[in-house]
Amino acid sequence: MQKTRLDTARIRAARRTIDPVFLDTPLYRCEALEPVLGCAVSLKLETANPVRSFKARGTEVVASRLAESGSRAVVCASAGNLGQALAWSGRGRGLDVTVVASRFATVAKLDRIRALGARLELVDGDHEVARERATVIARREGIRLVEDSLDIETCEGAGTIGLELADSAPSFDAVLVALGGGALATGVGHVLKALTPGVEMICVQPLGAPALTYSWLQRRVVNTDSADTIADGVAGRCPIPAVLDDLLQVADDAVLVREASIIAGMRTLLDHAGLVVEPSAALGVAAVLEDRDRFAGRHVATIVCGSNVDMGAYHRWVGAGHPPEGL
Amino acid sequence: MQKTRLDTARIRAARRTIDPVFLDTPLYRCEALEPVLGCAVSLKLETANPVRSFKARGTEVVASRLAESGSRAVVCASAGNLGQALAWSGRGRGLDVTVVASRFATVAKLDRIRALGARLELVDGDHEVARERATVIARREGIRLVEDSLDIETCEGAGTIGLELADSAPSFDAVLVALGGGALATGVGHVLKALTPGVEMICVQPLGAPALTYSWLQRRVVNTDSADTIADGVAGRCPIPAVLDDLLQVADDAVLVREASIIAGMRTLLDHAGLVVEPSAALGVAAVLEDRDRFAGRHVATIVCGSNVDMGAYHRWVGAGHPPEGL
Repeated sequence: MQKTRLDTARIRAARRTIDPVFLDTPLYRCEALEPVLGCAVSLKLETANPVRSFKARGTEVVASRLAESGSRAVVCASAGNLGQALAWSGRGRGLDVTVVASRFATVAKLDRIRALGARLELVDGDHEVARERATVIARREGIRLVEDSLDIETCEGAGTIGLELADSAPSFDAVLVALGGGALATGVGHVLKALTPGVEMICVQPLGAPALTYSWLQRRVVNTDSADTIADGVAGRCPIPAVLDDLLQVADDAVLVREASIIAGMRTLLDHAGLVVEPSAALGVAAVLEDRDRFAGRHVATIVCGSNVDMGAYHRWVGAGHPPEGL
Repeated sequence: MQKTRLDTARIRAARRTIDPVFLDTPLYRCEALEPVLGCAVSLKLETANPVRSFKARGTEVVASRLAESGSRAVVCASAGNLGQALAWSGRGRGLDVTVVASRFATVAKLDRIRALGARLELVDGDHEVARERATVIARREGIRLVEDSLDIETCEGAGTIGLELADSAPSFDAVLVALGGGALATGVGHVLKALTPGVEMICVQPLGAPALTYSWLQRRVVNTDSADTIADGVAGRCPIPAVLDDLLQVADDAVLVREASIIAGMRTLLDHAGLVVEPSAALGVAAVLEDRDRFAGRHVATIVCGSNVDMGAYHRWVGAGHPPEGL
């Protein structure tokens, strides 16, 4: 592997600044999924914590460094999970947290950001509009802007998941990672390529929000005009060049999945693993459902990266008693 | 605390024989539950493992001791979770596992017992009939009968949850534990009373299966003629005297909850914590819902002890989009 912006030793050091409630998350073989998916499946569960996503691994690193440097305020744009995590991490360290989000964001996520005491500003546009607005606020107020995936702490935090995967006894053949801005994929991917280079590192993105996957395939940044997916956590349109450079070093493949597969993935995880997940967290399972032959007989691990969903939407998507075989 | 059959040092030793996949489970404050429940709530999540319940902590201890002693076979009666766990623990150690269950047991649990390679024998009666049948099989075949809650390993395994609760930083005011046969309550209770005696140890049982609670209240074994509850994991009728003796030492209270409260508890955990749980695992939340005044302003921890449900029944109980306030 050529160099990325990341460093495994720094990722190990990051673990020491993260509240243990977010570390050493469950990693277990889920055999009940295996007849459905046709391969051995291990789940890395990032939902059983105070913010129900992996994002706090990164915001713990950001917030602890800010607090050490005497900062008092921070702003980020978020589809909801980063904002919730930053609100949690900032609250514990006396930071004023501002989160900018699309007014179309998942209501459950916005409610939790407010409940955690952050100032929430909604923009009349998508996540890219929120990113622009957060930049303006940071400049105007002279405070730190946390840019997900660009800021190295967000990738280092996510990378600690990679350490836990690499340190586990079972050797996976492939790891399936949701691809959005790229923090999770580059963080986990860096560590896996450094420590377990034989493991295939596969990114999965919705067909409706394919910008970073197209960029990876074409080896240059490709923006898209719109994003149309229920997987709100990964619905970016404008990949970050430095993140793409890292992704080109660490990803073995990047695949796109249909919305119907994401829903089938959510339903499969509910029916056979007893897990409520948000759409982004079902991308790995969706990828297996779309290409069973590729994974047949192999051992795949997938990161169940979040469970913040509006329950009304969840019930509409997943329904009640519909078998996942309906894909 | 007067003596129980349990010993904290032995419980610490038991940890070393349990596969780490079942240990150090998530323990986290779930603030989204708190407006609904009116108190601070921490969840100890025992569902994110290969058998989706806490029972493998005990069966790991049983199976490892059996394997060390050269045994080749073992039998237990089970409502489903113990059988699944014993099947898992036995499979990894080359033990032939027989599970006796009621033919009315939760189908998802029976399916998993079979899938894990155990021999499953169904009886035309309830769990107490299954217990009798398992005794006959053990005697006839000359193999070890694992009796949940009576056999000390099952309580020691459960007791390791107590160690994890006691070792955690936050000090709870009360711990709410599902009460069935008593392994979980006596195991956890022993450790909490030994290490954190100020924490109130509250057992929760369904009003429809109150035998051990009645026994605790009357300080003598009270059998019941029937058990009628959706909480299949705790639906015993014939408490074990030695377990009652221990429970009298470690429990500060034992309360009964209505079926509607159990359902409301399941719905609350789904809607506000994103957790699918089986009825037994909602007993703690049900107890708070029934007596908010008792817990107002306090910090309670509850053990989410299993998530093995038939999804059809789950959907019928929990419905879609019904607010938990409907209690």
